[in-house]
Amino acid sequence: MNAPDNNLGFVVAQKARFDAPLRLKSGAELPSFELAYETYGELNAARSNAVLVCHALNASHHVAGRYETEKDNVGWWDNLVGPGKPLDTRRFFVVGSNYLGSCFGSTGPASIHPATGKPWGADFPVVTVEDWVEAQARLAERLGIERFAAVIGGSLGAMQALQWTLSYPERVRHALVIAAAARLSPQNIAFNEVARQAIMTDPDFHGGHYYDKGVVPTRGLRIARMIGHITYLSGEAMAEKFGRLMRRGAPGFDFDIDFEIESYLRYQGDKFSTYFDANTYLRITKALDYFDPAADFGGDLTKALARATAAFLVVSFKSDWRFPPSRSRDIVRALLDNRRIVSYLELDAPGGHDAFLLEDERYHAALRSYFGNIEL
Amino acid sequence: MNAPDNNLGFVVAQKARFDAPLRLKSGAELPSFELAYETYGELNAARSNAVLVCHALNASHHVAGRYETEKDNVGWWDNLVGPGKPLDTRRFFVVGSNYLGSCFGSTGPASIHPATGKPWGADFPVVTVEDWVEAQARLAERLGIERFAAVIGGSLGAMQALQWTLSYPERVRHALVIAAAARLSPQNIAFNEVARQAIMTDPDFHGGHYYDKGVVPTRGLRIARMIGHITYLSGEAMAEKFGRLMRRGAPGFDFDIDFEIESYLRYQGDKFSTYFDANTYLRITKALDYFDPAADFGGDLTKALARATAAFLVVSFKSDWRFPPSRSRDIVRALLDNRRIVSYLELDAPGGHDAFLLEDERYHAALRSYFGNIEL
Repeated sequence: MNAPDNNLGFVVAQKARFDAPLRLKSGAELPSFELAYETYGELNAARSNAVLVCHALNASHHVAGRYETEKDNVGWWDNLVGPGKPLDTRRFFVVGSNYLGSCFGSTGPASIHPATGKPWGADFPVVTVEDWVEAQARLAERLGIERFAAVIGGSLGAMQALQWTLSYPERVRHALVIAAAARLSPQNIAFNEVARQAIMTDPDFHGGHYYDKGVVPTRGLRIARMIGHITYLSGEAMAEKFGRLMRRGAPGFDFDIDFEIESYLRYQGDKFSTYFDANTYLRITKALDYFDPAADFGGDLTKALARATAAFLVVSFKSDWRFPPSRSRDIVRALLDNRRIVSYLELDAPGGHDAFLLEDERYHAALRSYFGNIEL
Repeated sequence: MNAPDNNLGFVVAQKARFDAPLRLKSGAELPSFELAYETYGELNAARSNAVLVCHALNASHHVAGRYETEKDNVGWWDNLVGPGKPLDTRRFFVVGSNYLGSCFGSTGPASIHPATGKPWGADFPVVTVEDWVEAQARLAERLGIERFAAVIGGSLGAMQALQWTLSYPERVRHALVIAAAARLSPQNIAFNEVARQAIMTDPDFHGGHYYDKGVVPTRGLRIARMIGHITYLSGEAMAEKFGRLMRRGAPGFDFDIDFEIESYLRYQGDKFSTYFDANTYLRITKALDYFDPAADFGGDLTKALARATAAFLVVSFKSDWRFPPSRSRDIVRALLDNRRIVSYLELDAPGGHDAFLLEDERYHAALRSYFGNIEL
């Protein structure tokens, strides 16, 4: 007997264009915009089986499957999404949407400003998690989805899932909020700020108008990514993966690579700086910093989440020091205060913040079970 | 009644020149060198009351007191060292020594290379904690100190104190090892590496030969310092001190300062970049990365510390996530395995790694008591 085929095969990225202006939280207005997205599975006749997958900092609408023209380009959550996988595309209609301001297809700083015919660059507005949800809501309408069976995301994606339950409570039945925080701590903001300063002080940044200069602030992007990676991995995972292993066997007494961890960080930084857009990075970190549903309620998260009517699954990872379990528990507590239906899973998976992307058996079993229990 | 005068008053920085070459751990040789130092109190007739104070990354031989010409320039450990203070200069002869490679007075990358008549720059060797102890040992000889009553330091200074007990066991009676680690974790190294990369990729770095270019890699130094500060403060201390307080009361939707923590980091980075030398920063972080007494003993710290005969006081702070208490306990355990005399204090002071510099009552009481019990 052959193993069941649980791969989506080739998928196709699509774009939806919206010509009605979008008013942003900042007060700025986008005259029009495009969202890049992918869908897997089929919307059922009752339109009750749609699941929105929201992505984090360095990902896109390419959630699962491969492109026919880029066979190595596997979706970032392919271990979770597909036929027979925990988020089963034989049962659900899955939508992956790239957020506004991205550099992977949706309208962003590198897009052409309709009024000038040049890239927006520094003039692209600062967008927020709330703005992303607004844009995604239009996409949902376009796709004929009045109500999502579930909205799911990890990290920044989880913030979008949470925001969906607040912006459009009646349009979300279940929210899966994974490796999240209801707002960044000052330490989280501090890391973001150092990354931004590295980018903005790179001489090739040119105040954000580098597109027509033939340069890219790769130095700054590289540093930003290296800082990010330190916060995505747990100290324990780093110790286990790299230890104090020395590439040359002994100290080099120079500034070439001594320790394997240095090699890893440089590699990640170099790679990132070749494809990620600096203006996007700045805006995403701001969206993270600004996200704080409790801010309008005197910091009271319970009051802030009173609007949410969805059922929740909240998942955290003990090795995640970026958004540790205590931050997820804050969300759970606020939901329980409001007598909402909430399941909470705290896993001791070792992957750090990135654990939400990894294939942990208990984690995937929990998601499979949760999705399996969603009635269509 | 007047309060007792517990200030040292004006102190004077001195320099000791050593013309015999110093062979470094790397194999390189310094043909000659100078050490900047200060002393407080008087060496007694038995020469039994000398205490060496070793400094951390961003400090110097200016441990206590003020300079007559710079009255605001108070020594970095002035709250600890002085007449009537925990390290009482009426009883002890205190020596503060600037390490080799520094930019504050001892021979370092900005010093003139005797062979070329130009600054060493990138050609200044990579120095180690062991090298620093060698240089300090020569200073001790110069000052007529055959044996220190105690060697004390915090953080990188504590590593020097520990190394003293290994390089010259017979010349140290007591070692006070505060906020230390017996070696850096991969995560510690990762932060150092990002700081180094920020400096080395700054276009004004010029491969370390920037002294004659009329520029300084301030951008890189600034980022390095911002990263450092995140690791010196605890997340809790940041939350308490800055919270999510916004400087303009509301999000600015731009890249100016929003949160107070951003303002703090930028200020610290800006200040540091005006006075610290980039080549020194690179070397100090390497000295930290390389420090690992257990490396020659297959990673066995117990075997590594078998040489030490001093009595120890080890102090750690629960809020220190750079070198958390578990790292101090590793040292204590290895000393106990060797049946050494060791006292251990684990404090819940909130200051993070920087707590070793702060005036915590229990901390200072313990140091006062420990020094008081040292027989002269």
